Amino acid sequence: MSEVSLRFQTGAPQNLEQRFASRAAGMLPSEIRSLFAVASRPEIVSLAGGMPNLSALPMEMMAGVVKDLILNNGAEALQYGSGQGHPKLREQICDVMALEGIRANPDDIVVTTGSQQALDLISRIFIDPGDVVLVEAPSYVGALGTFRQYEASVVHVEMDMNGLVPDSLRNAIKSVRATGRKIKFLYLIPNYQNPTGVLLPAERRTEILSICREEEIFVVEDNPYGLLGFDRPSPNAMRAEDSENVIYLGSFSKTIASGLRIGWALVPQSLKDKLVIASESSILCPSNFTQMTISSYLANQPWREQIASFCELYKVRRDAMLESLEEYFPKEATWTKPGGGFYVWVNLPPEIDTKAMMPKAIVAKVAYVPGTAFYADGFGSWSMRLSYCHPTPERIREGVKALGTIVKQEMSRRGSELK
Amino acid sequence: MSEVSLRFQTGAPQNLEQRFASRAAGMLPSEIRSLFAVASRPEIVSLAGGMPNLSALPMEMMAGVVKDLILNNGAEALQYGSGQGHPKLREQICDVMALEGIRANPDDIVVTTGSQQALDLISRIFIDPGDVVLVEAPSYVGALGTFRQYEASVVHVEMDMNGLVPDSLRNAIKSVRATGRKIKFLYLIPNYQNPTGVLLPAERRTEILSICREEEIFVVEDNPYGLLGFDRPSPNAMRAEDSENVIYLGSFSKTIASGLRIGWALVPQSLKDKLVIASESSILCPSNFTQMTISSYLANQPWREQIASFCELYKVRRDAMLESLEEYFPKEATWTKPGGGFYVWVNLPPEIDTKAMMPKAIVAKVAYVPGTAFYADGFGSWSMRLSYCHPTPERIREGVKALGTIVKQEMSRRGSELK
Repeated sequence: MSEVSLRFQTGAPQNLEQRFASRAAGMLPSEIRSLFAVASRPEIVSLAGGMPNLSALPMEMMAGVVKDLILNNGAEALQYGSGQGHPKLREQICDVMALEGIRANPDDIVVTTGSQQALDLISRIFIDPGDVVLVEAPSYVGALGTFRQYEASVVHVEMDMNGLVPDSLRNAIKSVRATGRKIKFLYLIPNYQNPTGVLLPAERRTEILSICREEEIFVVEDNPYGLLGFDRPSPNAMRAEDSENVIYLGSFSKTIASGLRIGWALVPQSLKDKLVIASESSILCPSNFTQMTISSYLANQPWREQIASFCELYKVRRDAMLESLEEYFPKEATWTKPGGGFYVWVNLPPEIDTKAMMPKAIVAKVAYVPGTAFYADGFGSWSMRLSYCHPTPERIREGVKALGTIVKQEMSRRGSELK
Repeated sequence: MSEVSLRFQTGAPQNLEQRFASRAAGMLPSEIRSLFAVASRPEIVSLAGGMPNLSALPMEMMAGVVKDLILNNGAEALQYGSGQGHPKLREQICDVMALEGIRANPDDIVVTTGSQQALDLISRIFIDPGDVVLVEAPSYVGALGTFRQYEASVVHVEMDMNGLVPDSLRNAIKSVRATGRKIKFLYLIPNYQNPTGVLLPAERRTEILSICREEEIFVVEDNPYGLLGFDRPSPNAMRAEDSENVIYLGSFSKTIASGLRIGWALVPQSLKDKLVIASESSILCPSNFTQMTISSYLANQPWREQIASFCELYKVRRDAMLESLEEYFPKEATWTKPGGGFYVWVNLPPEIDTKAMMPKAIVAKVAYVPGTAFYADGFGSWSMRLSYCHPTPERIREGVKALGTIVKQEMSRRGSELK
């Protein structure tokens, strides 16, 4: 049966766009989207994705966890649950956060369908069209997309190799306020940031918290990678130092399994009720089944050791990437040296357009994400994000080698054009 | 450790409300919310909830399904998936919808975290503050909450024992447009409606579709209960008759298990891309694990027979409720006679305030939902929704008997007050 015959036409398609809400204009595909279809072909070495590597997760064990859950608690696991999230899991989340110095009350936690949903709900509660959200430069592409849908005006704040620069934050606040606009919050990823892999040191955390408290700007601390430090533990979470002005987002996507879609927000008490209501309106309740899978896993399995296995797995991949960048990339390129997480950020000479270079990379069987995806303002054209989380170390070396060749060709081509 | 010592205070709580977006004013608890905490106590016969009854679902079978899924496909099931939803599940959803006469292309389906998320995303795409959404009178409380968060103006359209009245729809459209407001869509539940249990007959479906096409108003057809007809199959879905002007919402919450949180939207092709982008911004992707659980269940288990078992289970409960209403309720009360689904709607004499009567019912160990919860405009004060889906037939009889006594007492009390 052809595609056409499947459609039961009753009239001409209507002009939908005229009937959309104004916010729908911001519902645009990200630069990463079209890329991922190509990058997922098996012959391509994908340094583009941020998919966790599940090869260290014992599937026999997980199968046992879910089987026992249904046999022992099926009637609860397969039923609607609480809009705020499963009470036992919220207690266990407190134990997980304690590893990063956070003391929290389970009642201040709202469990979400991945931390992306928490980001969406926080945006829904705070952002009126035109409100300003401050973000790192560059920042997480999924957050930029959400802020755009709520018609926020995104203002990037300068980073260096130690993360967000406090003085730049002060200046950004001043210049935004000079234009009369409201700043709703500062969104940042202090640990092994996406896309740069950079870590914000403890003293900068304190300084940024103090600036934001003083200026009455919330800090939205997104922390999916905090437990994935390779060589030493990350500094305490910012939320550990400030429970009233920090909205903390956590996730099990990188420490257990992303396919369960369980994240959470830990919020100041005064915000919790609104957040639960917003979440119920959005999804009624998160899945009891996936929440209780995580709860049972945390209760009965050696989860700290499992995170250590993930760290080991990612560390050898990070090493493979840094070594091969050193070996195959031109001396004009610079890159970050992440101490954890999934990503390396590469700056090339400014004459290189990493987006325009993509098709050549794909032909050479390697994919990455062009830097512009991580900026709301068109910046980043000579940068790229390389992720080392998923391929084997051998494939990473192969991919970086191929990419280094392309970059060098591109530099010499641009060099001769400029002569 | 006390509650207080768990909180690490760093300053006075800020006045949050001043910083909320204007839409946050609409994030209010529903009337049902506070009720559910009370109604879930074991000594109370809850005729309030809409939780499906899982006692007919074989847990050994479900445990086998999830165990095999992880063993055979764990690396995919526990990983991020497609924003649009798992391709195989989208094909199977077409088979499920075919039971109600729908011919669809899997590419026009977006899988969501319960159909509530689909409702949220459709609202996000279409509703600007002040836009009108037409709904049945009464309508689903969760839909009303979502429309309120997007600052829609909800206009109720009259129903009778055969559902939405087409002439009332014509009048509502005319009078809304006379005020210059935009109507974005008509939201309705044609099968065993929540909260009334009423079925919209085939000829009215056709007439309503024709009105909406002519007036260029989308129909959002929410159909969680369509396969739960007790005596005969439901009429074809409205989407079966009109693929261009109907946005169809489906759910596995009532036919498989609500705790998996899997629903879907089937939309006109021109709408699909926006819907996927909105969903990615909201949750990145639905859970591969719960999607593949459903997919594997549909592929390997006798799911049509399972739905028939659910119908049998609900039918005896519906009968118990209708019989005991007949036996225990005063002759002045009237109620619907649902042919499927979960709910009976009861109208009492107008001097009865069902919300004010609730505490007395709770004392008599029975709970229901007051009618005002299902109206955006304060109407419904002498009505109530009774659900028969969850308790045993014996408990239903016990609950309806206790409630009948309370209603009669209330009528005689109000009667003597009015003398």
